[in-house]
Amino acid sequence: MDYEATFQTILSTMRQDGRYRNFITLERIVGAFPTARWHRPDGTVQNVTIWCSNDYLGIGQHPVIVGEMHEALDRMGAGAGGTRNISGTTRPHVELEAELADLHGKDAALVFTSGWISNLATLGTLGQVLPNCAIFSDALNHNSMIEGIRRSGAERFIFKHNDAAHLDALMSSIDPDRPKIVAFESVYSMDGDIAPIAELCDVAEKYGAITYLDEVHAVGLYGPHGGGIAEREGLADRITIIEGTLAKAFGVMGGYIAGSTALIDVIRSLGSSFIFTTSLCPHIAAGALAAIRHVRATPTLRHELMANAERLKAMFVNAGLPVLDSPSHILPLMVRDAHLCRRLSETLLHEHGMYVQPINYPTVPAGQERLRITPTPFHTEEHMHNLIAALLVAGRQLGWPLSSAS
Amino acid sequence: MDYEATFQTILSTMRQDGRYRNFITLERIVGAFPTARWHRPDGTVQNVTIWCSNDYLGIGQHPVIVGEMHEALDRMGAGAGGTRNISGTTRPHVELEAELADLHGKDAALVFTSGWISNLATLGTLGQVLPNCAIFSDALNHNSMIEGIRRSGAERFIFKHNDAAHLDALMSSIDPDRPKIVAFESVYSMDGDIAPIAELCDVAEKYGAITYLDEVHAVGLYGPHGGGIAEREGLADRITIIEGTLAKAFGVMGGYIAGSTALIDVIRSLGSSFIFTTSLCPHIAAGALAAIRHVRATPTLRHELMANAERLKAMFVNAGLPVLDSPSHILPLMVRDAHLCRRLSETLLHEHGMYVQPINYPTVPAGQERLRITPTPFHTEEHMHNLIAALLVAGRQLGWPLSSAS
Repeated sequence: MDYEATFQTILSTMRQDGRYRNFITLERIVGAFPTARWHRPDGTVQNVTIWCSNDYLGIGQHPVIVGEMHEALDRMGAGAGGTRNISGTTRPHVELEAELADLHGKDAALVFTSGWISNLATLGTLGQVLPNCAIFSDALNHNSMIEGIRRSGAERFIFKHNDAAHLDALMSSIDPDRPKIVAFESVYSMDGDIAPIAELCDVAEKYGAITYLDEVHAVGLYGPHGGGIAEREGLADRITIIEGTLAKAFGVMGGYIAGSTALIDVIRSLGSSFIFTTSLCPHIAAGALAAIRHVRATPTLRHELMANAERLKAMFVNAGLPVLDSPSHILPLMVRDAHLCRRLSETLLHEHGMYVQPINYPTVPAGQERLRITPTPFHTEEHMHNLIAALLVAGRQLGWPLSSAS
Repeated sequence: MDYEATFQTILSTMRQDGRYRNFITLERIVGAFPTARWHRPDGTVQNVTIWCSNDYLGIGQHPVIVGEMHEALDRMGAGAGGTRNISGTTRPHVELEAELADLHGKDAALVFTSGWISNLATLGTLGQVLPNCAIFSDALNHNSMIEGIRRSGAERFIFKHNDAAHLDALMSSIDPDRPKIVAFESVYSMDGDIAPIAELCDVAEKYGAITYLDEVHAVGLYGPHGGGIAEREGLADRITIIEGTLAKAFGVMGGYIAGSTALIDVIRSLGSSFIFTTSLCPHIAAGALAAIRHVRATPTLRHELMANAERLKAMFVNAGLPVLDSPSHILPLMVRDAHLCRRLSETLLHEHGMYVQPINYPTVPAGQERLRITPTPFHTEEHMHNLIAALLVAGRQLGWPLSSAS
């Protein structure tokens, strides 16, 4: 078999379908967020405004976090040197887990090298150790949750997105004695909509199910202390497992879960994607700890983010730009065409110095292509005016139909 | 269902079987490697000598690497802020991938957040995109390779460990036109033995298979430039994909693959565990780049490691300690009993200030429990004498039968 030819064919097809992704090489600039240096393929460099970062609070450059990381690096060095079990558990890991448990009002927490792995390990392990488990999964759950559910081997039931009645119908159809998990997100990454957590918990409790809530796009951003949507709505005690990330509002990398002591210990003891991997660098754990403490204690950051998101959304609507009516800080501008989406992004970058990555399949279904805009507290009104002006110019230039909002 | 009771039962069973793992909380000390501060559960602290780190060269504290990370942190901040596709590709990622490709004499490379994910993403994707693919997997392959193969859905054939004849027999049994992958490691983590790479490549080439080599316990350590066992034996050009880690000899965290441009692009474009995760922190990529350049250019590090491993192994043999006759830097002392292994480790830690984590199931099969010793260039002859003395005392105390080597 000619493997290279096969690979070339796969790539050609992706290019034809407009699904081929070009990564943009950036260099963030401390003190100038959301500005970054864009390294063009030809070697030249240009400053651009980032409009698609998940460093939602711009916290990744904050002196408190960076300073703590410097200190930890000087004290403990770079890597952990092993898995958590084999010499890779350090003081900052343990302190970080205690802080995360406290943030969510849970007994215990466990840190992973990514949110992706958190979901894979937790759902993959739980669905396996609970005999004959049934997992009820929201139709728009993130890839990592789907991978975890698949890995578990448990029977999977997909309920319509944010539809508690459909969940109820599905749950009523199976043996009441089976162990069950209801898995969903709070803020959905690509549409920016928010789950009806109380209603879903009502159904889950009716059937005696574990609730698993992915809050990666909400931790640090919602709730009085940044505990997420569950905290904001006073529902954290009805959620068995809260999953979150250290890589978005907390500005570093890694993921985690929080829950009961025994549950966390089971994942810690049996999750192979947790066991067999080098642990997060100690200074990253130290930076995450500093970030969480800072974000918990600084509600103004959350207020500024939400105010900016509201302001920009209103500006989109006024300009006739097709923004989804999202109740969160995520503002998707619907393009609904892979090639147009890519060309809009390229034009913004090349002609206007603004970077918004096109969101195409497989991140969203074909026909749902979009520019996903994420304002931060550091985007000024001038940044916003410039963005709108550029979108209108590029849209007219490329034939983006802008009369009707989505 | 009473979920908490189920979790408690699982944990109780693990405790009874001697499989329950207690993580030891450490704090590495820059400038004093392999000494670390051990934080006891009661809050007291004691200095201990680490004998089980995979920071094989002690490079994680080297000023060149740590200094580069400081500089990158000050310049770019902490996290990447997004997936590689959505604002998370930075200049250090691109430079690191070029360096890794060059290290292994390949066209391209791709960096992941861990070696675990490298294996999952690459084998999981390749086995899926090659129609009707058959994957031939060494019986002792790492959990992450097994997970990748399982995820791919491809048919799996397990060949006896390091057995080219058995691989040949298996490969001859299937349709010659099917796409095939032969997946194996160079240095095996737990036994420290080394694959017969040339023989396995002979068989793979005979049947037109892709070769996939996991070199995580070899990169930085073997070969004139630290390119691994494949480099040492002049076989890198016969390996389609070399997989490695940034978390062991290169002292930080993350994993990677190196191969042809088209193959790397396919994994980059289709590997969901690569696509849907925040990229490695830019300063980690910068630190890894500095580490690789330093390790490539400093063969004395490799010579010192091997000399220390040889010296310690000879000392084990002379003392009648049951060291596996490994040809690598990994020195397993066979205990073959889960409870004894754990008690030996506890005694070394509590009574002798030496930390060697017990290796029990599922990391090794039941009955193969061991103390896995990893000397580094920083372990002195005094450290070694102290270790042997402590092992003999603890062994006599706990009834470890030491007369016969394994």
